[in-house]
Order: sequence, then C-alpha cells, then structure tokens
Amino acid sequence: MRIGLDILGGDFAPKACFEGVQLFLNEYQKPKVFLVGPPEEIQEGIRLYNLDVSRIEIVPAQEQITMHDHPVQAFKQKPNNTIAVGYGLLKHKAIDAFISAGNTGAMLVGASFMLPLINNVPRPTVGTYFPQKQGYAYLVDAGLNMDCKPEYLVGFAQLASTYMRTLHNIEQPRIGLLNVGEEASKGNALTKQVYELLSASNLNFVGNIEGRDLHNNKVDVIVCDGFTGNILLKHAESIYEFFKDQPGSELFNYELYGGAPVLGVDGLAIIGHGISNALAFKNMLIKSVEMVEKQLISNIKQHYANQS
Amino acid sequence: MRIGLDILGGDFAPKACFEGVQLFLNEYQKPKVFLVGPPEEIQEGIRLYNLDVSRIEIVPAQEQITMHDHPVQAFKQKPNNTIAVGYGLLKHKAIDAFISAGNTGAMLVGASFMLPLINNVPRPTVGTYFPQKQGYAYLVDAGLNMDCKPEYLVGFAQLASTYMRTLHNIEQPRIGLLNVGEEASKGNALTKQVYELLSASNLNFVGNIEGRDLHNNKVDVIVCDGFTGNILLKHAESIYEFFKDQPGSELFNYELYGGAPVLGVDGLAIIGHGISNALAFKNMLIKSVEMVEKQLISNIKQHYANQS
Repeated sequence: MRIGLDILGGDFAPKACFEGVQLFLNEYQKPKVFLVGPPEEIQEGIRLYNLDVSRIEIVPAQEQITMHDHPVQAFKQKPNNTIAVGYGLLKHKAIDAFISAGNTGAMLVGASFMLPLINNVPRPTVGTYFPQKQGYAYLVDAGLNMDCKPEYLVGFAQLASTYMRTLHNIEQPRIGLLNVGEEASKGNALTKQVYELLSASNLNFVGNIEGRDLHNNKVDVIVCDGFTGNILLKHAESIYEFFKDQPGSELFNYELYGGAPVLGVDGLAIIGHGISNALAFKNMLIKSVEMVEKQLISNIKQHYANQS
Repeated sequence: MRIGLDILGGDFAPKACFEGVQLFLNEYQKPKVFLVGPPEEIQEGIRLYNLDVSRIEIVPAQEQITMHDHPVQAFKQKPNNTIAVGYGLLKHKAIDAFISAGNTGAMLVGASFMLPLINNVPRPTVGTYFPQKQGYAYLVDAGLNMDCKPEYLVGFAQLASTYMRTLHNIEQPRIGLLNVGEEASKGNALTKQVYELLSASNLNFVGNIEGRDLHNNKVDVIVCDGFTGNILLKHAESIYEFFKDQPGSELFNYELYGGAPVLGVDGLAIIGHGISNALAFKNMLIKSVEMVEKQLISNIKQHYANQS
C-alpha cells in the first residue's frame, strides 16, 4: 500500500502534513507514504519529525499551486507542481491514493484531466458528510458541478450509493433527492426530472427530502446539484462556528472527517480541507488506506459494469 | 386601521388565532380586526376570549382550504373559502392587510390572482429573516419562485431592499448574492448573470456571499432563487430543533418573527407559518400594523415609479 501526500497543500503545510504523517506512521504499521514536494523540505521534515525513512518515499516537485492561482492556468504555468506530480504517480499506478489539502480547484482539474472517467459515469463528483442525529449521511454534489443535467444527479446518486455501501457497509443506501417538498410534483425543472429518473433506477430511492431533513436520519445519501450542495456545506460549517462551544456541535466539525475522494474517476484522489490540521491529515491518511483496502474504485467500476 | 385575519388558518386555528387577537387588542388600542371565517365560530371565539366587539368585524366565510388541498383547484371548488374572502376585502381596500397561517400555496395563489402586480415588478416574492450575530438579514426568495430568470433575482433584491429600508430604517441596505465564491466569475449560469445585473443596478450591491456568510452580518439582504432559499430556510429551522435547548438557538426560532408579506403585489398579504401559536399571531398582527403605518406598499410602488 502506497499513499501519496502533497506536503505543500493546505494552510498549515508543510508542518501539519508532517505531524499528520508522524501520527499515522506510529499508528499504522504497513502503508508507505510518498511525500510530494521540494526534496530539501521533505528531508528537513523527516529529520524534524523523526519519520521512519523506510516507510517514506521522496517524490520531487518544486512548484506549488497556491490558493490564489487559477487552477487550469496553474497546470500550464507550473508543470512541476505537487498536484500534477501526485496525479502523475496515481495515473501510472505508482501510488494507490493521492491526498492534497491544496487548491481544491486544481485538485479537481487534475482529477478531470489526468485520470480517466469511469465508463458510463456522466460527471465526476465530490461529496461531504452531513451529520445526522446518529451517524452521517453523504451529500453529493458538494460543489464540483454547478449547472447540472438530470442524468448528472442520477450519477451522483450511483457513485455515493457505492461509496456508502463500500465504506459504511450499508447494503442498500437510502437515496433522498433534496427538494422543496415531498411530492414528486414539487421542485424546480431539474429536480422534477431527476425524481422520475431516480424512481426508474435500481437505486434505493426513498423520495424527496426537504431542508429540514438534512440531519434527521431519513437517508444515507442526499443528492443535489453542486451549487445547492456547496452553499449547504458552507452553511453547515458556519453553524458549527455559531454553536461551537455547545454540546452537539462537534457533529458539525468537518475537520474531523478527513478528506473527500473525487468519485467517478479511475484513481483515488482525496481532497482535504484548506484548514486541515495534523489530526485532519492523519485522518485523511487513515481514510485513504480504508478506501484502498475496501476497493472503492473497483467497486464503482463494477457497479457501472453491472449496469451496462 | 383595519387588519383582516383568517381564523381557520394554521395548525392551531382557531384557538391560537383568538388568543393572539386577545393579546393584540390588549396591547394595541387603535386597529380593528376583521375576523374571516364561519360567523358562529367567530361569535364563540369572541365570547370565550372576551374580545372587545367594538374592535372586531365578523366577515363570513364558510369554507376552509386545508393543508391537503391543491391551491389552484381549491379556489375553484371552495369559492367561499376564508383566503379568497380575505383577499377580496384586501383588493377592495376594505382592509389594510390580510393575515393567514393557512395553506401557503393558496395564499400565494390568491396574491397572484387577486391582487395586481406592481408595475415593473418581474415576479412577486416572499422573504424570510435569517438571524445574524447581531440582528437579522432578509433572505429572498424563500420558496415562491423555483426556476428563476436573472431579472427575477434583481426584482427580489429591489423589493427586499425597500422592505429593509421601510421596516428597519436601513437607508442603503447591503445586498449580497448567494453564491459559491466571492469572485464575479463564480457560480452557476443564473448567478453569473445576476451578478452583472446587480452590479449595474442602483442597489447597494456588495457582491457575492457564500453559505458561511448567512449569519455573519455581512449583508442586510440575501438574494437567491426560491429553490435554494426554501432549502436553506428549512435547514435553518431544523438547526433550531437540533440546538434548541442551548444559548444562542433562540435566534433560530422562526415562530417569534411573525409572518412574511408577499412582496411585489399591490396589497399587504401576510403569510404565517403553519405552526403559528398565539404569540406568533400576536406578532403577525403587530408587524402588519407596522407595515401599514410605514407604508410598505406605497414605498415599493414609489421605488419602482422612480426607476422608470
């Protein structure tokens, strides 16, 4: 098992990355970590954090895509950036997963341009955990796809269903379509069409859910367009800030969850939150190992192969 | 001043209506309340709640549009329903405002069909208060308009700006466009176009705001399509349920705010929450008096007249 990590990604990089790797290596015995970044910085991190060199590979990449770079332009202007180098390793199966908490747009551009789309997937997507009274539901799309066709949302549901089955052992994840009312006739032009398509699909579609149902354990997967999903995600994060010193609020602490995989591409790319701390990096490493062990990507390919 | 009230509207009608009227009449000396409903029920309410008959008018209406009725069909099948009768009074200026906590769809249908649209208003809208760290912002559209053209959102901004100026004495309300990022280039096809139009308008447009900015006092008016707004509104209500016993959560208690006026039509129709209790009815009556006194409808007409 080989996990790649961008040491220049995130607001607290590289310090938080090295601390996270240290915590991870101490707890998990097997996986190797491929650190992607300037070799001298990696060497210094290995020394400072006393990392076990037998479990580290140094992958040189001198350039950084910052939060201010335009994702597509940055790939051209900085060809030797950590994200491009990481995706290169992933594409050539030199690593099993690649993690970065860097420029989210660049991570998405890299996934789209450098990894093949799995057959019959309409669009790649990224989800996010939404806390429930017990446990979590998975909301897709969390912000990758703004203007969606109905079949995109069905694809998000297929991908998230496989994700929840694979990662959380839910045999038939309950799929809810985020909408303004329970009846099939409710909603905007998009959701009315998606309702029809989901009803006719092989998914465990339980119907529309409303804004009030986002935390009440009604479903395992919440499907919406990326515009709505992104706003809800950021709203939920701000709610955590609002109530952060109060019991119950820890459910809204997104830092604990680790990163989100790009779903639908043939390769495991995991996007971390920009504000990832050492704990978040450790959790991303742990989660990525779990996704590799549980064969998330193979399961998605198998799911789509079974349909066609 | 004459305020109309549907005594059959809301989950706790007519009891909560009469209790609210009682509280209102005791606190406010001048306005008359026109109770719309079956006369025998109103007579009984007057007796039971010891209402001052000199300040009550009984307006007979035998039929009720229930929560299960289809709004448009109900207007045809039940021509003598309380909502239609109330709108009839409003249209003919027999009352200055009409309040109902009944079927929301029917209230909106009534506003559209029985009241004229104010000149140059693209679409009527309904807003909702969103709690801020201090005070409130007004979010439009809260669920009336699902599939929106760009000019609708500019209209929502114009109406909500006048609402905040009139009701909250904010001379130049700060308008924020709800979006997925701050830059003009962010968003879906709709918000990109709305950004251009708002930038070119005479409004105090401060730019895009994100999901995390919904409670941080950045703006006075939050503009979005009704699909997004409805989901956010219901999400915020459920957050209140989640945290309801904790300090700070009272800000999310929507019952305290009273109802929401339909903006853009020539007549003051106020929609109450289905779960309105006595306090909510009292607050709706108080708010409607304030909207009449501050000449909300005239100000909206004036605002649009000045533009053309």
